[in-house]
Amino acid sequence: MSSLRVRTDLALEVRENMEEGAKECRGVSVEEEYKEESELRITKVVIETMNGAKAMGKPIGTYITLEAPAMALPDEDYHEEIAKELAVQLKKIIPDIDKELSVMVVGLGNRDVTADALGPNVVDNLTITRHMVKEYGKAAFNQKKVHMVSGLVPGVMAKTGMESQEIIKGVVEKTKPDVVVVIDALAARSTKRLNRTIQITNTGIHPGSGVGNHRNAITQEALGVPVIAIGVPTVVDAATIVSDAFEKMMRQTGEEPLEIQDNLLAGLGELYNMYVTGKDVDYEIKQISHIICNALNSALEV
Amino acid sequence: MSSLRVRTDLALEVRENMEEGAKECRGVSVEEEYKEESELRITKVVIETMNGAKAMGKPIGTYITLEAPAMALPDEDYHEEIAKELAVQLKKIIPDIDKELSVMVVGLGNRDVTADALGPNVVDNLTITRHMVKEYGKAAFNQKKVHMVSGLVPGVMAKTGMESQEIIKGVVEKTKPDVVVVIDALAARSTKRLNRTIQITNTGIHPGSGVGNHRNAITQEALGVPVIAIGVPTVVDAATIVSDAFEKMMRQTGEEPLEIQDNLLAGLGELYNMYVTGKDVDYEIKQISHIICNALNSALEV
Amino acid sequence: MSSLRVRTDLALEVRENMEEGAKECRGVSVEEEYKEESELRITKVVIETMNGAKAMGKPIGTYITLEAPAMALPDEDYHEEIAKELAVQLKKIIPDIDKELSVMVVGLGNRDVTADALGPNVVDNLTITRHMVKEYGKAAFNQKKVHMVSGLVPGVMAKTGMESQEIIKGVVEKTKPDVVVVIDALAARSTKRLNRTIQITNTGIHPGSGVGNHRNAITQEALGVPVIAIGVPTVVDAATIVSDAFEKMMRQTGEEPLEIQDNLLAGLGELYNMYVTGKDVDYEIKQISHIICNALNSALEV
Amino acid sequence: MSSLRVRTDLALEVRENMEEGAKECRGVSVEEEYKEESELRITKVVIETMNGAKAMGKPIGTYITLEAPAMALPDEDYHEEIAKELAVQLKKIIPDIDKELSVMVVGLGNRDVTADALGPNVVDNLTITRHMVKEYGKAAFNQKKVHMVSGLVPGVMAKTGMESQEIIKGVVEKTKPDVVVVIDALAARSTKRLNRTIQITNTGIHPGSGVGNHRNAITQEALGVPVIAIGVPTVVDAATIVSDAFEKMMRQTGEEPLEIQDNLLAGLGELYNMYVTGKDVDYEIKQISHIICNALNSALEV
Repeated sequence: MSSLRVRTDLALEVRENMEEGAKECRGVSVEEEYKEESELRITKVVIETMNGAKAMGKPIGTYITLEAPAMALPDEDYHEEIAKELAVQLKKIIPDIDKELSVMVVGLGNRDVTADALGPNVVDNLTITRHMVKEYGKAAFNQKKVHMVSGLVPGVMAKTGMESQEIIKGVVEKTKPDVVVVIDALAARSTKRLNRTIQITNTGIHPGSGVGNHRNAITQEALGVPVIAIGVPTVVDAATIVSDAFEKMMRQTGEEPLEIQDNLLAGLGELYNMYVTGKDVDYEIKQISHIICNALNSALEV
Repeated sequence: MSSLRVRTDLALEVRENMEEGAKECRGVSVEEEYKEESELRITKVVIETMNGAKAMGKPIGTYITLEAPAMALPDEDYHEEIAKELAVQLKKIIPDIDKELSVMVVGLGNRDVTADALGPNVVDNLTITRHMVKEYGKAAFNQKKVHMVSGLVPGVMAKTGMESQEIIKGVVEKTKPDVVVVIDALAARSTKRLNRTIQITNTGIHPGSGVGNHRNAITQEALGVPVIAIGVPTVVDAATIVSDAFEKMMRQTGEEPLEIQDNLLAGLGELYNMYVTGKDVDYEIKQISHIICNALNSALEV
Repeated sequence: MSSLRVRTDLALEVRENMEEGAKECRGVSVEEEYKEESELRITKVVIETMNGAKAMGKPIGTYITLEAPAMALPDEDYHEEIAKELAVQLKKIIPDIDKELSVMVVGLGNRDVTADALGPNVVDNLTITRHMVKEYGKAAFNQKKVHMVSGLVPGVMAKTGMESQEIIKGVVEKTKPDVVVVIDALAARSTKRLNRTIQITNTGIHPGSGVGNHRNAITQEALGVPVIAIGVPTVVDAATIVSDAFEKMMRQTGEEPLEIQDNLLAGLGELYNMYVTGKDVDYEIKQISHIICNALNSALEV
Repeated sequence: MSSLRVRTDLALEVRENMEEGAKECRGVSVEEEYKEESELRITKVVIETMNGAKAMGKPIGTYITLEAPAMALPDEDYHEEIAKELAVQLKKIIPDIDKELSVMVVGLGNRDVTADALGPNVVDNLTITRHMVKEYGKAAFNQKKVHMVSGLVPGVMAKTGMESQEIIKGVVEKTKPDVVVVIDALAARSTKRLNRTIQITNTGIHPGSGVGNHRNAITQEALGVPVIAIGVPTVVDAATIVSDAFEKMMRQTGEEPLEIQDNLLAGLGELYNMYVTGKDVDYEIKQISHIICNALNSALEV
């Protein structure tokens, strides 16, 4: 019904917002698993063809979503369960992880804006090994296999004057990791999903994604090595909030006042670059960072 | 037209949103001054009677607002101008400032949530003198008059388990300041006003004001000493954003679909405790904190 | 041999630095336990009489020390073991913990100085329940026994203009906890002990202790309720470093050049208020904060 | 007299610690200027020949030092004076600053360790223009000349697994600045100089300099563009403190107990990687960051 643009970084939400018929489109496969005891829903959307990519408005690739309603609530044991499942999924999607890899983990976002600090938080707390392996050799680790893990927090363009992509590309060319893992705060369509969903994908990060101005694609095509992106919706566009409320209302009344809708859209201009977050955003970001950090440490066996 | 609740902490906005006739209500006086060269608008709303208080939904007292569209933009000279004007207004509203005072400055809010960290930021950077005066005496300051300035950042209830009021009251009773100045992040009605307006009032802080849960009044009645509040709108309620967009739209189409409106309101429940901020919130809060800090240092001659 | 003042906040170190004969002093009992598998040494020093207090230069009371050489190294499982043991000790020393208590946890120190931020870090991450119990009642917790936990970060005098004691006392009188638990960064005598030792005592905090200026005793006598202090040596006095190196040297050469010693002491004036920390202080403080936070959460069953 | 290694990053201190005869060495020129009214001493040491470099233990180049005893005390007007003088010196030493330049400012150090956070603090607060010039063109700036300023905070090796040099080199090759300005916290020889001296040099940063492990040279030779380094001594090596106290003592007694000295040195091993800072390090670093930030903004006319 609505022609309002769906603004979301989650493949899952794109699909939810498609009309019933469109969902069964060719070139997109969907698998869903629900773990009763942990209330954890894992959805795997694979966009297989250009046709599928067009229908979804997302590039070809794999999108895995972990959803858990209590993800950001205080419960360390539960967080550990989610982290374990996330590690399992990461091990599946990071190519050649059974070999010894050099992995660069990049935390996108602005560390001074609570909802955008997810990436920097994860990298700040990650176990970093590259310099140790370089200095003492793998033998020092007393493990069969030792990945070299490095971490980078490039900062946002307003504070660096550079695209994140430029910084990452420069560092990748100099330190030559085998794979890049990028963590970013995403925009969701629904407030219900905030800090309750983790998406991992092998398609990297695309322009306009995330909270801030992380422009220019951070993808295998751009960097020359595979790019795995871990994203968590931490904000909703302010304009999305309004157009959603509007749609819901229209649906209820059965009207289709197109003229009104255009007026509405015109009035939303001032909401450009405005974001909605919850009041516990600091606590929730801390929890999710911890989950992702533990999952990465576990997947990378450090 | 609308019966939607106006959610704002600014007396100025309350008045703007009143119907034309109601504005001229008895018991409320308004003075406005516009400084052409600095584009600074100073509005003084005085609620003089219980009637006025009822009409405005705010307690009896003085509310001074400084508005400047470029307040949060990078321009140090301009910030100094605003700080000077703010100092002038603070000197007028802090009682007995010509005498030597003991002033406790309280920074409300959550330092880990960017938009709510205004108060803590100001207190962190303020010149504090109480301990120096106590230890070395006033003579050490080489000034005619020396105020004793102390600073307190009580934190938010989710992290302390206590009302801000309990903490402040306890410390006031123990250290006996002559006056308390409270800094807080407020909710505005309009995104246009975010980080562009400073309100000072001698009525203190009232329940439900601000971004977080700073419950229980922080007022002269509660603390036993005069309370001057400095507030800056740094967020807009997510529900306000939606109902505003809705109203604007209805006004344009001339409809009054009351039924729809009720549906709308019902749908906004999930927006409870959600806030809207701009993407440069970190930069803007830093600028405004700096202005208020300089104004306080200047007004208190420290 | 040396008359240089031993500057330490650890009862354990006081005893170590006493001459052999003096150690067996009356009024001081010492118990030691070493857990082989975890390399954890637990020492309980009880000062029972005024005589013992005089000999030790510490007030009458119980001082329990947990020492583990690998305390600050990256090993989450090990941290959990230490946290468990710390919880056991806390349960023994917090009076009436088998009843339902109102416990105020206070984090002393300056959150902007890495080595002094231990206390604030612990309180920032603690599970706080007082406001929940007050709002929803104990029934909501679905537990037999629910302590009300509150948290306070008073800040340091240079930033508040007030003694920590004044602030804590004010808040204690207003919110009436049954017991206060204070966390503080301490000064050790030896760099070997930095971030590897946790001391808990029922004697509170005494003037001049810790890194900063947390003056005025925070004790049961001052606050009117029992005060349990948890301290971790995170710095060594710069003057201590020098006089220790000097002593070691003298001991090796067998000389007793008292004149030289006086010259030395005179030259140390400029080291007043200077502290020594290691270069990994940020990482180590984070680990220890986490251990103490988990131990408190566990002891308080929150 | 002493053979103890002088551990300092300041050319000025190297010279002070040379024996009288050695100071007049060829290949090193020294100019000094003292500004009475501002108590600001400016010393320019130019190492002109390999011989001079050998004698000084520093590479050929220019080293300008600004010393002001009250640099870190609270006095904004005074800070502005120092910033102005620093800007004058920066304009002299940054090559081709009269043309339009692309300048990358790099803040070395660990933002989580107070004394090492100087570089990150400066970059966080700098006016960044590169992205604006790229997006809107120079015309938008309404200035005759517009430098493109970018900022980078590479982080420390323990947290990135990479040398700062690798990161900077990668980003320089990608974004091609004309000149790199590096800000770093240095180690001084004397506690008297902490946070009271600013050194600028055109020789870049050399291995082992600074507080942390910023290894591998950050120099024109390494990066391919001129590198200007701004350094402030914020710590003293713990071993330096001890050996200094020892020397002072020996000098006073007229002894030369070489054997003792060796014992002393052996005993200092545990002080490796330990640093001395003052208790107001947070406040002082904030002040100096502000001075350098203002000086850079002024020199770069942003």
